[in-house]
Amino acid sequence: MSSIEELQEKVATLESELQRHKNAGGRGKIEKMSAEVVDSNPYSRLMALQRMGIVTEYERIRGKSVAVVGVGGVGSVTADMLTRCGIGKLILFDYDKVELANMNRLFYTPDQAGLSKVEAAARTLSFINPDVEILTNNYNITLVEHFDQFMSTISTGGIDGKSPVDLVLSCVDNFEARMAINTACNELNLNWYESGVSENAVSGHIQLIKPGETACFACAPPLIVAENIDEKTLKRDGVCAASLPTTMGIVAGLLVQNALKYLLGFGEVSDYLGYSALNDFFPKITLRPNKTCEDRFCIQRQKEFELKPKPEAPVVEEASNEPLHEDNEFGIEIINESVEEKGAPQSQGQGLRYAYESGDAHSEPSAPPEPSGADDVSLEELMAQMKKI
Amino acid sequence: MSSIEELQEKVATLESELQRHKNAGGRGKIEKMSAEVVDSNPYSRLMALQRMGIVTEYERIRGKSVAVVGVGGVGSVTADMLTRCGIGKLILFDYDKVELANMNRLFYTPDQAGLSKVEAAARTLSFINPDVEILTNNYNITLVEHFDQFMSTISTGGIDGKSPVDLVLSCVDNFEARMAINTACNELNLNWYESGVSENAVSGHIQLIKPGETACFACAPPLIVAENIDEKTLKRDGVCAASLPTTMGIVAGLLVQNALKYLLGFGEVSDYLGYSALNDFFPKITLRPNKTCEDRFCIQRQKEFELKPKPEAPVVEEASNEPLHEDNEFGIEIINESVEEKGAPQSQGQGLRYAYESGDAHSEPSAPPEPSGADDVSLEELMAQMKKI
Repeated sequence: MSSIEELQEKVATLESELQRHKNAGGRGKIEKMSAEVVDSNPYSRLMALQRMGIVTEYERIRGKSVAVVGVGGVGSVTADMLTRCGIGKLILFDYDKVELANMNRLFYTPDQAGLSKVEAAARTLSFINPDVEILTNNYNITLVEHFDQFMSTISTGGIDGKSPVDLVLSCVDNFEARMAINTACNELNLNWYESGVSENAVSGHIQLIKPGETACFACAPPLIVAENIDEKTLKRDGVCAASLPTTMGIVAGLLVQNALKYLLGFGEVSDYLGYSALNDFFPKITLRPNKTCEDRFCIQRQKEFELKPKPEAPVVEEASNEPLHEDNEFGIEIINESVEEKGAPQSQGQGLRYAYESGDAHSEPSAPPEPSGADDVSLEELMAQMKKI
Repeated sequence: MSSIEELQEKVATLESELQRHKNAGGRGKIEKMSAEVVDSNPYSRLMALQRMGIVTEYERIRGKSVAVVGVGGVGSVTADMLTRCGIGKLILFDYDKVELANMNRLFYTPDQAGLSKVEAAARTLSFINPDVEILTNNYNITLVEHFDQFMSTISTGGIDGKSPVDLVLSCVDNFEARMAINTACNELNLNWYESGVSENAVSGHIQLIKPGETACFACAPPLIVAENIDEKTLKRDGVCAASLPTTMGIVAGLLVQNALKYLLGFGEVSDYLGYSALNDFFPKITLRPNKTCEDRFCIQRQKEFELKPKPEAPVVEEASNEPLHEDNEFGIEIINESVEEKGAPQSQGQGLRYAYESGDAHSEPSAPPEPSGADDVSLEELMAQMKKI
């Protein structure tokens, strides 16, 4: 039998080792972002964006609040990136649990299996960056009893706890949840980014929805969700959607990159950006709202937007109520992205914008010729294209 | 003073709590990848790629070995993605330590500050997926005393420990390391992907180098490294390059996605794919090797490639030794990517390939018209474009 002294020594050793495991190297909070170039400064590489002329006053990010709805394959990486960028406040929504079946995507680790996703995410994120305020909401926003709670959370989720969040990022995997976010954001007049990855794991997209200004999710559902699928429905049949950490990481990266551009005001914020992994194809378009959209708040926002003075922007062509094409059941029009851009040439016409044309690499006075038919892309062609990629 | 019984009880409690912290939920090895759709199967979403018709025999990935040189902002995420995809073997190279200044990028956590990057990465990766064999190399490959070690490690790093690795992924941040990889891969005749992110954090690229077939890193250095910078040089001057988790995550995603396509034979593998974050522009090109490249093994591989029969591929236009343009000091030619593609139309001419044209969305018999000058892009124009994005 050991002596009391030996046992006391062992207790002390174990307690100290355990303490190391529990506290393992987490850092304290940092009062102000510093640009100082020392190994111990987690913000030096971000503050360098100012010296490089990319962002003015990077520290404004601490005043921003973002809601991430769905913290699975895309949402968890989205939250991770925003946390490492030092966002002021993150509000997470999900009601799922971490499973080993999620380990083929980034972020979660096997020891978190069984934990709620929001709880597991919040723990990891707070450990990575304790400066970020993280709030978790562990419920299904599509259920009647939680929808109002979701609405009130995002409408008072700003950094001050009174104003709305600065942006909502949708990273959900099903139609109902997207429609719930759409309904809420149309009513609250909040801008949000929709994102998605196809069930075959090799394509994805992000889409900025500005109520009244760009097509809402109800304006054009088939185009957007054509390849999305509800995991729960599938699993009942003993099958599951494919997923890849690559596609989900890329979609999260494009989503957060555009969110940063939107929040901090640099670069061009993309409205719709697609990604097709099989051929590295990245289509960019802008969808105008549907004048016959069934969401009454979308219609109201469209009227408000029409009345709003457009400083410096060119006159947006008045669209008729009639669909552009015979079979255009949603009455969607495609407008040129450059309409929203300061100083962009107005002669590009309507239609799909070519990635190549969009590069500022083209500084020659003569614009590249428009491909035939670019200003006359039918909705059917576009939908067929989107389904294929 | 506590009794011996009380102390013994305390020791037992502490030991068990410590054990939980140490082992926390890591999973055991899995003998064979299963497609079974259960929450406990970490491979179900990857095996689903087979049912979706994307990949045949996904499990072949267990027979693949990949070297990742540099496990910083791009390399660590690259290794994470490959690990979660269940790659057979990963060989990591780096000689740096984790710092808090790295926390603005994905993967590393604050408790790892001070550990060597390869050691920290290997611990996390083995915990995420114990099925992956992970080897670490903690040295600088550019030093004379380590270069041979690097050569022999990648030339015998295959899954069988005798043949070479299946692919080398360069995720380094400086010119010398890229040149070292280039020299080794030209001599060993190994295909590799170069990757990089600009010092202003808002652009990046990946480039597949097949010795003798596409331009090697010595064939066209200024085009590739124009915006890259050595962190160590900068830090001496009290400045640092900017970096973002978004750009680095996207570049890692594009790199691993193309590595998966290359290793498992699906989709089209991109030769050079750029990414400009400010305008979501993704240029795709193929660079032909420089006939006057200073790397003698590159010249040798070019001769071997010329003699190799090209099954089904169209005759590659014989390029003269003379530069195409007066000031083309590197004698680089740009060839059309479609040369390497089965069944791609041959009428597209040379030059930059438009992302829009590359979509299989275009099934119409009439190809879109070529923009003027597309088959006559000068190297100077191209370099100017690459520098701008």
